[in-house]
Amino acid sequence: MKVDGKHIRPIWLSQDLKVVKVIDQRLLPHRFVVADLKNVDDVIKAIKETYVRGAPLIGVTAAYGVYLAALNAKDKPISNDFLIKECKRIKFGRPTAINLAWAVDKVLHETLKPETSSEKIKAALNEAERIVETEVENCRKIGENGLNLIAEISRKKGNQTVNILTHCNAGWLACVEYGTATAPIYAAFEKGIDIHVWVDETRPLNQGSRLTAWELGKHGVKHTVIVDNAGGHLMQHGMVDIVIVGSDRTTRTGDVANKIGTYLKALAAMDNNIPFYVALPSSTFDWDLKDGLKEIPIEMRDPDEIRYVQGFDRGAIKSVLIPPETSPAANFAFDVTPARLVTGFIIENGICRATEQDIMRLFPESKSH
Amino acid sequence: MKVDGKHIRPIWLSQDLKVVKVIDQRLLPHRFVVADLKNVDDVIKAIKETYVRGAPLIGVTAAYGVYLAALNAKDKPISNDFLIKECKRIKFGRPTAINLAWAVDKVLHETLKPETSSEKIKAALNEAERIVETEVENCRKIGENGLNLIAEISRKKGNQTVNILTHCNAGWLACVEYGTATAPIYAAFEKGIDIHVWVDETRPLNQGSRLTAWELGKHGVKHTVIVDNAGGHLMQHGMVDIVIVGSDRTTRTGDVANKIGTYLKALAAMDNNIPFYVALPSSTFDWDLKDGLKEIPIEMRDPDEIRYVQGFDRGAIKSVLIPPETSPAANFAFDVTPARLVTGFIIENGICRATEQDIMRLFPESKSH
Repeated sequence: MKVDGKHIRPIWLSQDLKVVKVIDQRLLPHRFVVADLKNVDDVIKAIKETYVRGAPLIGVTAAYGVYLAALNAKDKPISNDFLIKECKRIKFGRPTAINLAWAVDKVLHETLKPETSSEKIKAALNEAERIVETEVENCRKIGENGLNLIAEISRKKGNQTVNILTHCNAGWLACVEYGTATAPIYAAFEKGIDIHVWVDETRPLNQGSRLTAWELGKHGVKHTVIVDNAGGHLMQHGMVDIVIVGSDRTTRTGDVANKIGTYLKALAAMDNNIPFYVALPSSTFDWDLKDGLKEIPIEMRDPDEIRYVQGFDRGAIKSVLIPPETSPAANFAFDVTPARLVTGFIIENGICRATEQDIMRLFPESKSH
Repeated sequence: MKVDGKHIRPIWLSQDLKVVKVIDQRLLPHRFVVADLKNVDDVIKAIKETYVRGAPLIGVTAAYGVYLAALNAKDKPISNDFLIKECKRIKFGRPTAINLAWAVDKVLHETLKPETSSEKIKAALNEAERIVETEVENCRKIGENGLNLIAEISRKKGNQTVNILTHCNAGWLACVEYGTATAPIYAAFEKGIDIHVWVDETRPLNQGSRLTAWELGKHGVKHTVIVDNAGGHLMQHGMVDIVIVGSDRTTRTGDVANKIGTYLKALAAMDNNIPFYVALPSSTFDWDLKDGLKEIPIEMRDPDEIRYVQGFDRGAIKSVLIPPETSPAANFAFDVTPARLVTGFIIENGICRATEQDIMRLFPESKSH
């Protein structure tokens, strides 16, 4: 997408194909810094420490990680055992996003096939780039499919502003282009539909106020930052027409793991009869799972992500302590929104309700999984 | 309550009765500073800029404000017109808390009665102090009444830890002693019941992580700070036994205006079959109102309270910017939780369900209001 008139993605490969370049998203919106990932350790660090975040981008970064594992293998010919071991390390980075394991396994599968080292490296690169382009195309189609929902609301409101609420950042920064939850927003914006986005700040890491607000602002989309506490009040007073969020893992029955707090917004949407949609590429489905609350692992992160808040002061990024030094904190990174609260899914291949039956209508090949 | 072994209240009168002393709560937990309120302007500033906050403490501060108006009146004998005008100014400070207007009117009423200036001043002081002592006694009784609920849960759990979730600060810092939502917590703690409190940080002003965590920590009560997004997840997983919050204004039908985000926690409690109680002194009821969503004014505060977060860094309190400089924010300070989501009220004169009929059982004198 465009930043100050320049087309940019959150991840790309250096011209000599040796370095994976990523925007260090920890420093946005106050600093635009590109980090160099030169090996598997760099990739793991970037995923764990949230240089990159968002299910699709974690997947893409991990895919490039498998390529870097092959590229930098010391022993030649590259052994499959070595590749499998490196892939295990990468997959360990963050437990909730399904795309991580999915992308690693996909690239690994192709990399194990050839016999020579150079062919293995080439296969890894090809598959990683295929994943990148598939994600881009999927997000574009999610935008196309979701556009209809927004256009319909706009029509019903007589072209008055459509107010969309989103949680966390499921924007292009979380993907490669367009985003997932933001794809319909960007598509509606391009069509000239009058839209306004309520941006949940999304504590503790403030991906909403830092990243979504930055994305939307750079693209010229009207938006307002709110605290995570505010969405219910807005919905009670008719100030939200539709909620669109992303997902880190979705069960075949339609339960959605997403950034902590998503469940509360889904409850408020249900209570106020407001459509609550989850936009996701099909890679986010975990076809093995039937019960999100019981089966999806929820990552616990460093409590200091809550205790300290990072922001900008007089030209520098600073971290300030909020609670008493002695008060402990607990940092649950995701929650699960039960399918019964989800109006529908916006996927690259269509829109469906959050029931196993309707999901299977779009994915008949996963029926017997 | 006790701070480092010393008994302290958030508000008191100087020994010469000329200055109202308040803890400047904006600087807690990192700095303990006492502010001097010498006149009505000081009182209005302290209320507006949240040196003092919480419905009961706002009421008490405003009550002392009427006394300061009389004490510092330049024209003698003090005219009732002047007092009425000053009271209007004080009442204008914050729109949502009912206790503000209630306390001002109560003190004004007594102050208008006598004829001489010295008697007016004395009447104002007496009535303000009567309000203070009534609030203390009410909070003590709220603790007594709420204790039974916690003790019952403890019994049912075979004395395992009772997990209580609270939002914002409805502690002694918001009142004078004991607090409202915290009164049953302190009472249970004194009884030796094993309790643990989940403290919502309560964005944007972080009254939970700054004030509730500080209070509980100083008193020795086990607690953990969480982001406002986390409560739903905890409730889904059986980690919350009861929710207790305060209120800034409550209708005769049981709708509750409280800190923004309270409604979302009430929805989650209902969805997970967890008791959701509101603890409040009867002064928080607005007997004139029947529909909280339509009738309670919701204060809009400075968006910079969201955009900038204040915390502690290397010995100093600092403010850091979170979103892009150009992104706007909207700061709704309260929301309304409909009575249907409230399990019950813990009041100084008993516990009741959140229905007009059951509230009127405890307040028969308000029936015909």
